[in-house]
Amino acid sequence: MCCLVCRDDSNGDAVEQYGLVEIELNGTADGNPYVEVELSATFTHIETGRTVRVGGFYRGEGRYAVRFMPESTGEWTYATASNDSALDGITGTFATKPPSLTNHGPVRLAPDVLDGEAAAAYGTELPYRFCYADGTPYQPYGTTCYAWTNQSPDVQERTLATLAQTPFNKIRMCVFPKFYDFNTADPVMFAYEGSMAHGFDHTRFNEPFFANLDRRIAQLAELGIEADIILLHPYDKPEWGFSRMSKADDERYLAYMARRYGAYRNVWWSLANEYDLMPWKGRGDWRDYAHVIMANDAFGHLRSVHNCVTLYDWGEDWVTHCSYQRVDVTRTTEPIAEYRERYGKPVICDEPGYEGNIYWGWGNLPGTELMRRFWEGAMRGGYVTHGETYIDCGPQIWWAHGGELHGEAPERIAFMRSIFAEAPLDAAPLGAALPLEAVWPSAAGDAGVDGTVESSAETAESAHLDAPTPITPAQEKAMQYWDVPVLRSGLDWQLVYFGWYRPAWRDFSLPAGRRYAVDVIDTWNMTVETLPGIHERTVRVPLGRQWLAVRIRRVD
Amino acid sequence: MCCLVCRDDSNGDAVEQYGLVEIELNGTADGNPYVEVELSATFTHIETGRTVRVGGFYRGEGRYAVRFMPESTGEWTYATASNDSALDGITGTFATKPPSLTNHGPVRLAPDVLDGEAAAAYGTELPYRFCYADGTPYQPYGTTCYAWTNQSPDVQERTLATLAQTPFNKIRMCVFPKFYDFNTADPVMFAYEGSMAHGFDHTRFNEPFFANLDRRIAQLAELGIEADIILLHPYDKPEWGFSRMSKADDERYLAYMARRYGAYRNVWWSLANEYDLMPWKGRGDWRDYAHVIMANDAFGHLRSVHNCVTLYDWGEDWVTHCSYQRVDVTRTTEPIAEYRERYGKPVICDEPGYEGNIYWGWGNLPGTELMRRFWEGAMRGGYVTHGETYIDCGPQIWWAHGGELHGEAPERIAFMRSIFAEAPLDAAPLGAALPLEAVWPSAAGDAGVDGTVESSAETAESAHLDAPTPITPAQEKAMQYWDVPVLRSGLDWQLVYFGWYRPAWRDFSLPAGRRYAVDVIDTWNMTVETLPGIHERTVRVPLGRQWLAVRIRRVD
Repeated sequence: MCCLVCRDDSNGDAVEQYGLVEIELNGTADGNPYVEVELSATFTHIETGRTVRVGGFYRGEGRYAVRFMPESTGEWTYATASNDSALDGITGTFATKPPSLTNHGPVRLAPDVLDGEAAAAYGTELPYRFCYADGTPYQPYGTTCYAWTNQSPDVQERTLATLAQTPFNKIRMCVFPKFYDFNTADPVMFAYEGSMAHGFDHTRFNEPFFANLDRRIAQLAELGIEADIILLHPYDKPEWGFSRMSKADDERYLAYMARRYGAYRNVWWSLANEYDLMPWKGRGDWRDYAHVIMANDAFGHLRSVHNCVTLYDWGEDWVTHCSYQRVDVTRTTEPIAEYRERYGKPVICDEPGYEGNIYWGWGNLPGTELMRRFWEGAMRGGYVTHGETYIDCGPQIWWAHGGELHGEAPERIAFMRSIFAEAPLDAAPLGAALPLEAVWPSAAGDAGVDGTVESSAETAESAHLDAPTPITPAQEKAMQYWDVPVLRSGLDWQLVYFGWYRPAWRDFSLPAGRRYAVDVIDTWNMTVETLPGIHERTVRVPLGRQWLAVRIRRVD
Repeated sequence: MCCLVCRDDSNGDAVEQYGLVEIELNGTADGNPYVEVELSATFTHIETGRTVRVGGFYRGEGRYAVRFMPESTGEWTYATASNDSALDGITGTFATKPPSLTNHGPVRLAPDVLDGEAAAAYGTELPYRFCYADGTPYQPYGTTCYAWTNQSPDVQERTLATLAQTPFNKIRMCVFPKFYDFNTADPVMFAYEGSMAHGFDHTRFNEPFFANLDRRIAQLAELGIEADIILLHPYDKPEWGFSRMSKADDERYLAYMARRYGAYRNVWWSLANEYDLMPWKGRGDWRDYAHVIMANDAFGHLRSVHNCVTLYDWGEDWVTHCSYQRVDVTRTTEPIAEYRERYGKPVICDEPGYEGNIYWGWGNLPGTELMRRFWEGAMRGGYVTHGETYIDCGPQIWWAHGGELHGEAPERIAFMRSIFAEAPLDAAPLGAALPLEAVWPSAAGDAGVDGTVESSAETAESAHLDAPTPITPAQEKAMQYWDVPVLRSGLDWQLVYFGWYRPAWRDFSLPAGRRYAVDVIDTWNMTVETLPGIHERTVRVPLGRQWLAVRIRRVD
């Protein structure tokens, strides 16, 4: 007996591209099917002949499933294979229709999706960027709720309701419960059969636990939120013991996760939170675990691992992107420039410190400082993840439980997201991707011309250029930028972030022969003020308070 | 003819120890006495027989001087030597009395002054600390007025009046005028004879210029302010040319400065501001210049050199202390911990950025951020120098001209100075001088005892210690401190600075068997609030806003 379920298509007509197809099967319940029954299905796209082999998994009580994400529209056939004759040789067909408007497929590395003009649009930024499978740009604005699916159903529902109101399009979440301050309660369900009193059977997964996880990940997909699934973590207690399973148990669990969740388009794999706090697992183990994921995830989701105090070598082949926690309390998201160069991959600072007031040093930033870290990271061509740890706003703390948000950052992250959504795809960080001396060709020497140009006769630059210092004109120009991160797209667009600094004004040289509009962006008060007029050759931008950015846009 | 002038003792009775003795002499005015006449005097302390040979200098119009700082009380004799017979073989005597209460002598490296118990009181901090020649501790709280002595007399007087109201006990100041933004006016007087129109004669010093400098440095001494004299700097223009003199001219000037100002007890030598912006002078030149200073300064004043973007090797023998400008826009005073270790000398961050709103990136910090940098530096066992660059508060900008101060930092530096004046001399930075794991012996395991002790049963530590992580108890305790700089003196005193961070509270373990008072210091609002009660074993300190420090003092 077999049942084809198209999870995201209630009319059953056809599943949409990147949707979830589930083949439900019934087979033996004898012995331990979790370890004894082998099941897979091969899916064939009729039009192209492309085949995808997907591993199935056991759900208890003789029920089995194979989950599939069709990456092409059109007709598909499938055929199962199993060492249980009841599950073997089952075939069927289904159709895939184009995706709905909000379904762009899984997030990929941009170079893996794009070519030709679409790839060229990213310029030198291509290696550091994500996009959806359909080519839509994806900039992660993640948040962190480690153990939200291990809370009561009420808290889980409230978490989803909160997420629906936020700018977040990724969430870092564990599978196993978390044992840590404010996280000492035992969950109602565990991932394994058994009990704290009598131990857990690491060869038998607990279906209700995973059925809940299925539902939560699907709900995140509906909200457009990527589930960055943290597969292992050290915050455990002996009665749980999920951080201390044998390698064989770990690998069985990882294969199960990859088979069960690989067909959800919004899944990312994070092998661990703070891998280095589990030193009983070596680098070789992590590589082996990555290969278990890769062997069982037929859909090639993004993969990384996250550190505590020792950076991982994210240059390893299996790693798709860098997911780091800051290891210096002062330079937090600033190293993104170095990490991009070192690893040649997109860089996400997944723990820059959290907004809140917890007594631990990683979670008591004011919103201003968290937002500064967000901007500093994005201005260096990377991404930054949110977390919130207010310990006096109710029983839930967002970082672990979910529930409600209380901080000042989320609405400002929404504002920030809107600013970066408008940035050219090839906007590259000056000083990192571009040499700091790669200044815009300027009107130097042409001071005092007509238009809205400020005369530079009395300005810093001209005065300083007269000085007999060894600074070259290019270096001199670069002095405009040494203190601040800059993103620039050719001669057309530039964004400068001032952060802490609050100059009364800043003069900018503009490429000759072009005209520009200039915006002052208040990243804290969430305003964009466009300067009057159109500007040529140079522009003086009034500033004077903290947390400002200046955006210069070519208008002709 | 000879005249003995005791500059700081108007009744002429006796000069005080560390005062300025000047022997005025008349000799030839023929030729160019600046380069042709050799003059020195040997001073002998009668009681000990100790002799000090001091070079003299020409003052124009046949007038010569030898300046001497008696470092011992009692009777002195002197005898001159010269290739001009009118200046040769002149002898005399004078007496030195004990210094006045505010005269502690020149600032020295603490290890050069102290021994025995006085040195032991500094513990491991001794190599990183200054004291006056009489052993009084000296913690530099400097400010910056590069060209104040090149401003109009009115501005110079106003600068001194302002300084008298500030906490500053050191000032960074140039000899030559500064050509830079807001600094384009030509001074009334130059250091050399000649003119901008016809050039300057680098072999003939301009006496009125130096007479003014004499007076200003003496006035600083009266205010208890060390004059950190910047001998060379790149901010010049061709009509001045003082940054581009020949090496012989540089060395003549340096010898002249050392002979003329070495006897002022409040003089420090900074070979250059931003040495690396004068790449036409090599490292070998700077070493040679240092040796010219050492050969002509009979009183061994402190010596350093200051960088722009490339650190100097302050490990060189001639360097007494590290005077650095931050080279990373994010980590500014935090590297003091590394520099202490690298160079083994006191470390001053002489440019952490300035409070103000100038358009240049080094000078538009709000007071909050400058004060954070001050505290971060001091908490790492170093020192930080103030500067102010408000460009809309009148014609003078403090950083260059002097005049008046307008910022929020100075009064908070005064408050900070009062806090650190009370710190034990051996207070050492945890994590730098002390391993982070060098935690206070704690009451771990003794939770729930009587007294004012908070039960730790529900606290972070106990919960976390139950978790089966590989973190050792010592590391666990250190987690209290990884996020914040700490200064600690044995089991008696500890200061923790929270900076950006604003935990709702922080629990501290206290050494067993001792009792402590606990202060919450608001470094911005300048308050010290002592927690009620006396605390044992552990204390919970309420916090909850930025810029706080916690001071824990043993009371028995």
